Amino acid sequence: MSYNSFGHVLRITTFGESHGPAIGCVIDGCPPGLEITAGEIRTELLRRATGKSRHTSQRREKEDVQILSGVFEDRTTGTPIALLVENTDVKSKDYENIKRQFRPGHADFTYWKKYGVRDYRGGGRSSARETAMRVAAGALARKWLKVNLAVEIQGWLAQLGPIRTDEVMDWDAIDDNPFFCPDPQRVPELENYMDSLRKSGDSVGARVNVVARNAPVGLGAPVYAKLDADLASAMMSINAAKAVEIGAGFDCVAQMGTEHRDEMTREGFLSNHAGGILGGISSGQDILVSTAFKPTSSLRIPCRSLDIDGNEVEVVTKGRHDPCVGIRATPIVEAMMALVLMDHVLLHRAQMGQE
Amino acid sequence: MSYNSFGHVLRITTFGESHGPAIGCVIDGCPPGLEITAGEIRTELLRRATGKSRHTSQRREKEDVQILSGVFEDRTTGTPIALLVENTDVKSKDYENIKRQFRPGHADFTYWKKYGVRDYRGGGRSSARETAMRVAAGALARKWLKVNLAVEIQGWLAQLGPIRTDEVMDWDAIDDNPFFCPDPQRVPELENYMDSLRKSGDSVGARVNVVARNAPVGLGAPVYAKLDADLASAMMSINAAKAVEIGAGFDCVAQMGTEHRDEMTREGFLSNHAGGILGGISSGQDILVSTAFKPTSSLRIPCRSLDIDGNEVEVVTKGRHDPCVGIRATPIVEAMMALVLMDHVLLHRAQMGQE
Amino acid sequence: MSYNSFGHVLRITTFGESHGPAIGCVIDGCPPGLEITAGEIRTELLRRATGKSRHTSQRREKEDVQILSGVFEDRTTGTPIALLVENTDVKSKDYENIKRQFRPGHADFTYWKKYGVRDYRGGGRSSARETAMRVAAGALARKWLKVNLAVEIQGWLAQLGPIRTDEVMDWDAIDDNPFFCPDPQRVPELENYMDSLRKSGDSVGARVNVVARNAPVGLGAPVYAKLDADLASAMMSINAAKAVEIGAGFDCVAQMGTEHRDEMTREGFLSNHAGGILGGISSGQDILVSTAFKPTSSLRIPCRSLDIDGNEVEVVTKGRHDPCVGIRATPIVEAMMALVLMDHVLLHRAQMGQE
Amino acid sequence: MSYNSFGHVLRITTFGESHGPAIGCVIDGCPPGLEITAGEIRTELLRRATGKSRHTSQRREKEDVQILSGVFEDRTTGTPIALLVENTDVKSKDYENIKRQFRPGHADFTYWKKYGVRDYRGGGRSSARETAMRVAAGALARKWLKVNLAVEIQGWLAQLGPIRTDEVMDWDAIDDNPFFCPDPQRVPELENYMDSLRKSGDSVGARVNVVARNAPVGLGAPVYAKLDADLASAMMSINAAKAVEIGAGFDCVAQMGTEHRDEMTREGFLSNHAGGILGGISSGQDILVSTAFKPTSSLRIPCRSLDIDGNEVEVVTKGRHDPCVGIRATPIVEAMMALVLMDHVLLHRAQMGQE
Repeated sequence: MSYNSFGHVLRITTFGESHGPAIGCVIDGCPPGLEITAGEIRTELLRRATGKSRHTSQRREKEDVQILSGVFEDRTTGTPIALLVENTDVKSKDYENIKRQFRPGHADFTYWKKYGVRDYRGGGRSSARETAMRVAAGALARKWLKVNLAVEIQGWLAQLGPIRTDEVMDWDAIDDNPFFCPDPQRVPELENYMDSLRKSGDSVGARVNVVARNAPVGLGAPVYAKLDADLASAMMSINAAKAVEIGAGFDCVAQMGTEHRDEMTREGFLSNHAGGILGGISSGQDILVSTAFKPTSSLRIPCRSLDIDGNEVEVVTKGRHDPCVGIRATPIVEAMMALVLMDHVLLHRAQMGQE
Repeated sequence: MSYNSFGHVLRITTFGESHGPAIGCVIDGCPPGLEITAGEIRTELLRRATGKSRHTSQRREKEDVQILSGVFEDRTTGTPIALLVENTDVKSKDYENIKRQFRPGHADFTYWKKYGVRDYRGGGRSSARETAMRVAAGALARKWLKVNLAVEIQGWLAQLGPIRTDEVMDWDAIDDNPFFCPDPQRVPELENYMDSLRKSGDSVGARVNVVARNAPVGLGAPVYAKLDADLASAMMSINAAKAVEIGAGFDCVAQMGTEHRDEMTREGFLSNHAGGILGGISSGQDILVSTAFKPTSSLRIPCRSLDIDGNEVEVVTKGRHDPCVGIRATPIVEAMMALVLMDHVLLHRAQMGQE
Repeated sequence: MSYNSFGHVLRITTFGESHGPAIGCVIDGCPPGLEITAGEIRTELLRRATGKSRHTSQRREKEDVQILSGVFEDRTTGTPIALLVENTDVKSKDYENIKRQFRPGHADFTYWKKYGVRDYRGGGRSSARETAMRVAAGALARKWLKVNLAVEIQGWLAQLGPIRTDEVMDWDAIDDNPFFCPDPQRVPELENYMDSLRKSGDSVGARVNVVARNAPVGLGAPVYAKLDADLASAMMSINAAKAVEIGAGFDCVAQMGTEHRDEMTREGFLSNHAGGILGGISSGQDILVSTAFKPTSSLRIPCRSLDIDGNEVEVVTKGRHDPCVGIRATPIVEAMMALVLMDHVLLHRAQMGQE
Repeated sequence: MSYNSFGHVLRITTFGESHGPAIGCVIDGCPPGLEITAGEIRTELLRRATGKSRHTSQRREKEDVQILSGVFEDRTTGTPIALLVENTDVKSKDYENIKRQFRPGHADFTYWKKYGVRDYRGGGRSSARETAMRVAAGALARKWLKVNLAVEIQGWLAQLGPIRTDEVMDWDAIDDNPFFCPDPQRVPELENYMDSLRKSGDSVGARVNVVARNAPVGLGAPVYAKLDADLASAMMSINAAKAVEIGAGFDCVAQMGTEHRDEMTREGFLSNHAGGILGGISSGQDILVSTAFKPTSSLRIPCRSLDIDGNEVEVVTKGRHDPCVGIRATPIVEAMMALVLMDHVLLHRAQMGQE
C-alpha cells in the first residue's frame, strides 16, 4: 500500500525529511533506453529551487542530484532508478523554539496525534522539500513523453492572492520571471504585492494552472483509474493544495448543458470545457488542470496554539519561509502532470496488448 | 492495478453495464462481525435511485440487492462481500439511433478511441448506473463507521445551476425533499427552476457538499495516501465530477495566512478553513468536501458531432435522462466519503500496530 | 491490497462460498476484442468439475456460468468481466455435525481464530469450490494467450500417492482419463489404487506438473515481480498446495553447476534445468512448474480434535469428498499458469512502451 | 505495480546494482516508535556479507549502512525509512571479457532480450548484491516482531550438495560456523567438501530451512494473500531459488490423510505437517519453510554459449564467486520470513479493526 508511493505501472516512491541528511526517490517501471543525465534533472530541480528570488524562501540548496541506479552509460536500463539529493543548507536550530509547539495550519498537530513523534526540524517529512523529488522524477517523465510522444507540458501562475494572471499573454515569458507569470507586464505588480506582503509579515494563496498538449487520446480507465481522478489525487497530494479543477471545473455548476458539452466537427472539438477528459479518458484535446494552494501558515505574526502537553502558547515562526508557497508550485504541478500521463501511457499499453 | 477497484486495505471492485444483466461489486477487507442486511443496503440504493421524483430520470429500478457472499447469518465474515443488483428497467432500443454516433460530452468518443468497441446501450460501463454499487458498498462502510466510531456523514445540494443552497438551515430536512436541499423553503424555487429547465430541454450543473463528523484524528498518510488526495480521487471518479475542494478550497487563493490558519486553544480549533485535514492527516475537526458536477450532456436539443466513420452528424438524445445529474449525487458523495474514511481507519490500524 | 485478488495489470478478484448462493469473479484489465462465450468457459469448468468420475467428490454442479459484464456481442470490451456460477448441488446439512468442531488439516481452526466466525457449510470460503473461478478466469487467459501468442499450456498428474506418472507417454491421452494421467497404460493401476483407498476411508497426496510452450522471452521482472516468484505464489495459493518447484526444483540442490547451467548454441539451449526462467524472466524455453497437493483431511476415519469451546472431540467427516484432491488440480494449475503468463505479457508491454 | 517492491502494508522497495555507486531500500509502513540503529542493521548485513570465510566470494564490502530518513533520535517515526550502502569493493574490470557474452544460467540472456541493454558489471541488478537490502530491511522487521510479539526466526543450512544437515543438533551452533550448519560436528565435512569443490572449479546447490516461532495465530488471508503463498513468493524471489516447501512439502504427495492431518488435543497439535499454516492462515505452530538454491553458474570451467550478436562463444567466468550461493542464503531467508510475517501482522490488524 502506498503511503509514500504513487502510480500504477510507473511507481514513484519518495523518502527523506527537510532537515535529514538527504531526500530521494525510486522510479520503478521506466522503460529502458531513455537518455537522461543528472544534469538534466538538476535543471528542473533548480526551477523549483528555493533561493531563486527575494520572493521565496532563502534556503539555498545545491540540488546536486545523484543517479544511484537504473541508468547505465547515460541510458535507463529498465531497472529501478534511484535519485538522491543531499540536504546541504539546513538550519535546524531555527526550529528549536517550536519543537514542542503545534504550528497552526501545519501538520505538526496531526503528525503528533498519528505517530506520537515528529521530526520537528523544518517540518520533517511534511515539508515541501519532499516535492523536489517529484520534480526530479517528473523531469524524467517529461522527457520520456516529449521524446516518445511529443507531449508538451506547461504550467503557470493563474492567481496570486487577489491578482489574477490566468490569461496567457506570452508562453515564452513564463520561465523568464520568478513567478511563472504568463504576462510579463504584470510582473512589477506581483513584485510590489509580494514586497508589501513580506513587510506585513503575512502570506497569501495562489492558483496554478497546467496544460498538457499532444497527449494521446485513450489515456485513462473507466472507473477508478480515471485520468481525472488520478490527476486530482496527484495535485491534491502536493503540500498546501486545497482544490483541483479539470477543464471548466466549478464553473460548470452554473453552465447549461448546451454550453458545456463540447461539440465536434470534422475539424475537431469546438470548445474544451471538458479539459481534455471525457468519461475518465483523454480525448486528445489539451488537458487542463487548475490547483489552489493555501497561504503559508509559518508567519512571524503571532497566533494562538497548543504545545504537546496541551498548554496554550503563542506561536511565532521564524526561519526561512515562502510568503506564497504557490509561487514555486508551477514546476511541481508540471511534474505531477508528467508523471500521471506517463503512467497512463504505460498502463494503456498494458491493457491494449497486441491483438 | 486498479482500473475498476479502489481503496488501500478496504478494496471495492465494481462491475456491470447500464443495460447489461446486472451490476455488482466486491467489498474486500471488511472486518468480520458487522451486522448487515440486504434491506439496509437497499434503503441507501433507493435514496440514489432513479424515479424518485419528476426531476430525475424516469428509469425505475427495483434495486433488489442480493448479498452473494461474505455475510453469514446476517454478519460479515471477513471474506469478500459480493453484492448484485439485476437491471430490470432497461430500454435499450432508446439507444439504437445513437449506436454509431459520439454524443458530445459523453465517453462515447474516448471509449471508442481507446477500446475500438463500446457497449452503446445506455452508456455501458460509463453510465452513472455504476454509482449504485458505490452507494451499496458505502452503505456498509457508513454503518461500520457509525457503529464503531460514531462517525456521521451527511451530504447536501449546495448549488443547482445559478441557485446557491449552501447554507444548511435544517439538517433534518435534507432527506425530506428530492433535491437533498438543506433549506426546505428553497425547494419550491428549485422545483420551478427544474420544471422550466425540463421544458427548455436543457440541463444544468450542481455542487454537492459533504461533511463527516467525529472522524478520528490521525487518518491519512504523509505523502501519497493523503486523506485529502484520496478524497479528491474518490470524488473526481464519480461520473460528471469536474472539481473538488477540501475546506476553504479555491477561496484560500485570496485568503491571507493570518486568516486561513486555524488557531487552536484548549477548547479546540477556532475555525476550520483546513476542512479537517492538515498535512494529509485528519485533525479531528469536521471533514468538509465540495464537488462540482457538470450538466448532463444528453439533451433533446440537437448538436453537432461525428459518427464512428468520421461523418458529421446531428445528435439528438432521447431516452430517460436527468436534467441535472448532481441532484442524485448526494448519496454517492456520502458513500465515497464513507468508503475512503473506513479504508483509512483500517490502514491507520495497520501502520500503528500495537507497540 | 489483495486478500481476494491477484495479478499486476490483469487483476482477478474472486468471491463466494462453497454453500452460498453463488461463486463468481471479476476479471479486470483484459484487453478488448477477445471473442469469448459462456460455453467456452463452461467447457473448462466441467474439466475441473466434481462428479466427473467415481474417484472424485460426487457433488454435481451444472457450472452454468453467466457473463454479467465486460463482454458485448461475444467480444470483450476492455471493461471488467464478471462471471457468476450459482451453486445448485448444495447439501449443507452434511455439515451440521461439524458445525462446532475444528476438522484437523482444515482451515476451520485458523478461520475461527482469525475472524471469530466461520461459514462452516462445506468449508465456506476455504473450500476448493473457489478454484472453479480460477478455472473460469483461466479459460479466458488461456484463449487470449493462444490466439495472440500461440502459447500452449498443458498440465498432468505426475504422482498419485506412491505411484509416479511423471513421464509423458502420450500428450493426447491426458484429457481422456479422469486422472489427467499422461500414460494411458497406467490408468488401471491408478483406478485400482483409488478404489482401495476409498474402501480404506483414507486419502493421499498428489503432484501435478504443468508446462507452457511458446511463452515469449522477456516475461517477468528483476526482483519482486519475478515470473517464478509469481508462479510460486499462484500455485501455492491453490487449496491444499504445499510445495512448488520451477524446472529442476529441489533436484538442483545436489546438482553441480556444470550440470545445472543450461548451455546455449545457435540451435538454442541444450537443456532446461532452469524451467524456462532465468533471473526471474522467461527465456523462451518451456516453462515448467511442479506442485504438491496434500491428502484430503476430510476422512470418515475418526481423529482427535477440539471444538470451539475448547473441548476435545472425535471428528468424523461425512459428506462428499475427494480421496485425492490432486486429481482435479490439473485444470486449476493450468488456469493459474495462464493467468500469470497473460498478466506478465501485459505488464511487459507496460514497461516496454514504444520507444 | 511492484517490479521492485513487495509487501501489502509494509512495503519494501529496493534499488541498486552490484557495481553501481550504492544499493539501498525504502521501508514504507513501519509503525513509529521502534528503536533501531544503523549498527544493528549492519550486524545483520555482516552475517550475510561476502568475505566471511574462504568458502564464499572474496568481495569484501564494509556494509556501512546509512539511515537517510524515517528514524529520528534513534526511533522510527512512521515515515519512509531509507537505507543506503555504498559499494566499496567493486572490480568491474573482471567483467570486461563477458561484456558481450551471455553466461549460461545467468540473467544475461533474459535481461538482454527484455530490455535490450544490461549493466554487465557484476550482474547489475540481477546480482545477489540486491539481497543485502532484504537483509537490512529484514533486520528491522525481525526486531519489531521480537520486541512486540516475541517472534523468533532462525534459519539453517539443511543440505549442501549431497550432504544433508537438516537435523538441528544445536541451535546455538548455527551462527558459529560459516555454513549456518546446525550440527557443529558436520562442519569439517562441509569444509572438506567445499575445498575440493573449489579445486575442481565446479559449484553445487543447497537447501536452507527456516522456522518462525511464536508467530500469532490468524496471520494470512483466505485466498490470494495466503501466508504460504506470500512466503513462497518471497523465497522464490531470492536469487538462485528454484523451489519452496511449506511444512511437509513434497513429502505430502506420498502421505496418507490420516498421517498428514495434524490432530489436536487440549495440549495443542500432535504434529506439524502443515508447517504452521492451515487454509493460508497461521495456526500458532512453528512456521516451517524450506528453499532450494541452484548451484552458481559462474564457473571457471568453460561452457558453450552465445554473444549478443548470436555468435557461439566459449564462456569462462573469472571474478569472485561463491561455489555455493546457498551458504550465504540463510540470513536472506530469515529476512524474507521476517518481512512477510511483519507485513501480515500489520495487515491482520487492518482487517480486524476494533469492533
